[in-house]
Amino acid sequence: MSEPILRAQKLDAADELAGLRAKFVLDEVVYLDGNSLGALPAAVPARMEDVVRRQWGSLRIRSWDESGWWTAPERIGDRIAPLVGAAPGQIVVGDSTSVNVFKALVAAVRLAGEGRDEIVVDATTFPTDGYIAESAARMTGCTLRPATPAEVPDVVTGRTAAVLLNHVDYRTGRLHDLPGLTAAVHEAGAVVVWDLCHSAGALPVGLDEHGVDLAVGCTYKYLNGGPGSPAFLYVRRELQDRFDSPLPGWNSHTEPFGMRPAYEPAAGAVRGRVGTPDILSMLALEAALEVWEGVPIDAVRAKSLALTDFFLECVAAYVPEGAVESLTPVAHAERGSQVALHCPGAGDVMKRLIENGVVGDFRPPDVLRFGFTPLYVGFADVERAARILAGTLS
Amino acid sequence: MSEPILRAQKLDAADELAGLRAKFVLDEVVYLDGNSLGALPAAVPARMEDVVRRQWGSLRIRSWDESGWWTAPERIGDRIAPLVGAAPGQIVVGDSTSVNVFKALVAAVRLAGEGRDEIVVDATTFPTDGYIAESAARMTGCTLRPATPAEVPDVVTGRTAAVLLNHVDYRTGRLHDLPGLTAAVHEAGAVVVWDLCHSAGALPVGLDEHGVDLAVGCTYKYLNGGPGSPAFLYVRRELQDRFDSPLPGWNSHTEPFGMRPAYEPAAGAVRGRVGTPDILSMLALEAALEVWEGVPIDAVRAKSLALTDFFLECVAAYVPEGAVESLTPVAHAERGSQVALHCPGAGDVMKRLIENGVVGDFRPPDVLRFGFTPLYVGFADVERAARILAGTLS
Repeated sequence: MSEPILRAQKLDAADELAGLRAKFVLDEVVYLDGNSLGALPAAVPARMEDVVRRQWGSLRIRSWDESGWWTAPERIGDRIAPLVGAAPGQIVVGDSTSVNVFKALVAAVRLAGEGRDEIVVDATTFPTDGYIAESAARMTGCTLRPATPAEVPDVVTGRTAAVLLNHVDYRTGRLHDLPGLTAAVHEAGAVVVWDLCHSAGALPVGLDEHGVDLAVGCTYKYLNGGPGSPAFLYVRRELQDRFDSPLPGWNSHTEPFGMRPAYEPAAGAVRGRVGTPDILSMLALEAALEVWEGVPIDAVRAKSLALTDFFLECVAAYVPEGAVESLTPVAHAERGSQVALHCPGAGDVMKRLIENGVVGDFRPPDVLRFGFTPLYVGFADVERAARILAGTLS
Repeated sequence: MSEPILRAQKLDAADELAGLRAKFVLDEVVYLDGNSLGALPAAVPARMEDVVRRQWGSLRIRSWDESGWWTAPERIGDRIAPLVGAAPGQIVVGDSTSVNVFKALVAAVRLAGEGRDEIVVDATTFPTDGYIAESAARMTGCTLRPATPAEVPDVVTGRTAAVLLNHVDYRTGRLHDLPGLTAAVHEAGAVVVWDLCHSAGALPVGLDEHGVDLAVGCTYKYLNGGPGSPAFLYVRRELQDRFDSPLPGWNSHTEPFGMRPAYEPAAGAVRGRVGTPDILSMLALEAALEVWEGVPIDAVRAKSLALTDFFLECVAAYVPEGAVESLTPVAHAERGSQVALHCPGAGDVMKRLIENGVVGDFRPPDVLRFGFTPLYVGFADVERAARILAGTLS
């Protein structure tokens, strides 16, 4: 038996989170695409059946009160809160990430106040953040300034209203320095918006500790909420009273059933709502979040780093030198929970990998992307993935 | 046996749509709140089970292609299209109604072009439309002018950019003159946005026929899509190329997986998308729409009018004169699919009605609201509701 296989056995045997895998519906496939769509938590199907048949089918309209539908966005936000280092009452769930980026960025410009007319946006961002930032700039009379995260401390000035950054780069898996960049933005007197899509549920974020102003994130990656499950919006408590949403729907009114013609925003996280929330997706997410009960995010982070370390080791051991090149930083402080490999013909390579039971994804033009979800990926999976990758490339 | 009971029997016996009730999960309750949350179509639970267990649980990420998740927003839009008189390719499903009102209204102002800086909004609107219109006006440099639908032909001028109207008033059930008001807005050179929340699935709308520019609507009322199911957006084909969305998310990009930094909007209905759609809610809606197969909307309208006529008759027969007063117009051309009764102490009356198996809803300060969904409400239900109402009031 080869050395990596033995190592994997030892690592799995010592893995304190190994038992969590049983809380998911999985098969023999090595699923390394949880950074795109998380696997199905085993509690979800029965919950959805109850939501559909009993809550909707029998109780119908009464469920808005009796089944807790009305309060779900903040209740579920409070379940996400400890995973991203937020005290309760600051996160609301609903709408897509893109819509939440719009809310957060426009609100950030308004918080920054007069005389600041520039939005700095991560030049390496997942595209939707850039598109939405462009619209937010256009609609608030700002100019848009793209900058890499490393450049941010040098480009923020007294003109900067808001800075939109990604915590982990979707393509390379690079983890950016949230505490340092947040401090740099604040030093310039600007407001920071963090996109946590690729970090929420994968590593500690420390929103409150680091004084982050606003943040958004998706719930269908490391939080396993299901396809297109609603995103979340964090507004730091001290900013909530001044949070001025560009999407002031009736669900964010202080008295939504008062049907008043004048808008009066609710206090607290509720202010981040817009229209009627999509309850089916929302309650699937709530069931999915139960797997986190008693799971410390620090333990998740430790296992995530061990998994990506081990994957890079196995790739080095199995794959002929020069066939692939890691785009993911070696330093732990700069690594998210994925490994991106530059690989000629990556599109075809990923097809063959999937045919052979290893699911990652392909990002054009030539990147193989592998996500490692510590809740259900083990070290034997990692060894197997690297071994099959080597076979695919040879 | 009293006269209304006999009449109900005859009407039910002659009802060509009576068989559709079997396609819903219902019980002995008289459910007259389908204008708030439609009843559960019987096909939904099994479909959701398949979506959750097989599509998400087994196929996982592959379902974006293999289970048709990616194309769902337009495919489901095309199922709604015939119900609102739209040819295929003009409706996209996703986001909440409020978010779609924002997209439509900002896009309408941009379509109207330079020199027009006023948004006219229905002064009797469901509040969220007014709140969102205020935000759209603020962000496009327009002023907001409230006007009742009847006043619209007189207030639209060469300054008017866009007019936002409700097809059916949520409170009184009054149906507004969509063809006439659309023509009046067009005569002034402005763009019209119709909110179809209380008409889609209840009566013919004729979007194409009447040259409507933009429309939005919800799917959890007469379309029975489930709690908070995604809303829809209609953009008339001739306007699609100039539709300039304030929420240009990656899902509306011409090549979403190209991950290009510059936004290039897709052609067609896709342009109305924003972020990743909520697939669970979306596919529950798709299953729910199957009940419409072969059901002509004209037949639905004819039964709806017969139901509301009969309810008003029964109320007149059973309820002591002066105890309630209908706010819903007598003329068919001015009536939606609901009856609103002014009633002192309406909040308490509705509580007692619900305790006695008749579910409608209460709108402050003093309105009892009863919605009549022709797909599953019968004439015996109507008679019983009026009889129990009379008992509650005596």
